[in-house]
Amino acid sequence: MITYRKELWFNINKRRGLINITEAVQQAVGESGIMEGLVLVNAMNITSSVFVNSIESGLHQDFEVWLEKLAPELPYEQYNHNKGDEMNADGHLKRTIMGREAVVAITGGKLDFGSWEELFYYDFDGMRDKHCLIKIIGE
Amino acid sequence: MITYRKELWFNINKRRGLINITEAVQQAVGESGIMEGLVLVNAMNITSSVFVNSIESGLHQDFEVWLEKLAPELPYEQYNHNKGDEMNADGHLKRTIMGREAVVAITGGKLDFGSWEELFYYDFDGMRDKHCLIKIIGE
Amino acid sequence: MITYRKELWFNINKRRGLINITEAVQQAVGESGIMEGLVLVNAMNITSSVFVNSIESGLHQDFEVWLEKLAPELPYEQYNHNKGDEMNADGHLKRTIMGREAVVAITGGKLDFGSWEELFYYDFDGMRDKHCLIKIIGE
Repeated sequence: MITYRKELWFNINKRRGLINITEAVQQAVGESGIMEGLVLVNAMNITSSVFVNSIESGLHQDFEVWLEKLAPELPYEQYNHNKGDEMNADGHLKRTIMGREAVVAITGGKLDFGSWEELFYYDFDGMRDKHCLIKIIGE
Repeated sequence: MITYRKELWFNINKRRGLINITEAVQQAVGESGIMEGLVLVNAMNITSSVFVNSIESGLHQDFEVWLEKLAPELPYEQYNHNKGDEMNADGHLKRTIMGREAVVAITGGKLDFGSWEELFYYDFDGMRDKHCLIKIIGE
Repeated sequence: MITYRKELWFNINKRRGLINITEAVQQAVGESGIMEGLVLVNAMNITSSVFVNSIESGLHQDFEVWLEKLAPELPYEQYNHNKGDEMNADGHLKRTIMGREAVVAITGGKLDFGSWEELFYYDFDGMRDKHCLIKIIGE
């Protein structure tokens, strides 16, 4: 069995934003030399997500509107968590909807994706250094 | 370490519907010969889900009503994604709530499930060929 | 490859409640002797969740309010599932939002967590014996 570990770092210049990390994760799979196995990709911060969906900017706008409806940023005072120094309670809730992690199969040394599947990092509390973890196990 | 890969294919005859895939996944675990390990089961399309819950038709109706409340299909024009050829933006959102994948332990050659746990495939944009992936690693 | 399996049991004295299980899972990782790999932690009941977020009681209160807004407990009659003996349909929905499972990397014999990440068990239908599964694979 082989394992491989890598971190990806981000600092987006706004409160919320999406980054396509498919190529970066595929590159890590290549570096690992693992041909058959599983890759875990998870946010290492608790106000961001790793999730699988398609590259379609209209859909990404829809996610933004929808998440704001389900877990609105404002008013900040509606959340107990915002009584501290951070005003990011909505980010914790939005990340809960989108998920912390994706587990993806590796087959023949490639991410074993179906139709339109791509990996995204979604930050809900940006303008600071954030990171996600790639951990690969297999052979 | 052994790995095993199998696809399950579906074509449900309506926009949305659930299929119990527990036996099909258990069968794949048997075919793999793996006694101890993990199985990843994920939708390979981005408007469907794989999730774990119980066989209870009342609950399945509740999911349908609830998802329609959180991410309504209509009006189609409310979503940017629906400006293209597809009218399935709600399916992307519903699948986000239900999740893309389940990771299940294998112990003694069986899916290591607790009380009432069963695996389901949930399609939110049916009437077309869709598939999910089973990837098993272990010994 | 080594695998290790352990169950954690709970009986919380109210309908809903959170338990921090980070130390218990880290202890299981230590017992396994696995230095590099993955740990799956999943609820074995279908009205509870295992998820990753921070130890912050204000945030935990926010989760409670938010989940009750997205999937209200009352009135019981709004759910088909509640026509049986159980009045826990809302628990199935709340657990769907929070998720069934977490997969966490193990690096150097430790849970490979980022900033503020902690593992929680969240019961949405307590006052009975419930359990979750820890399954570890690696070397």
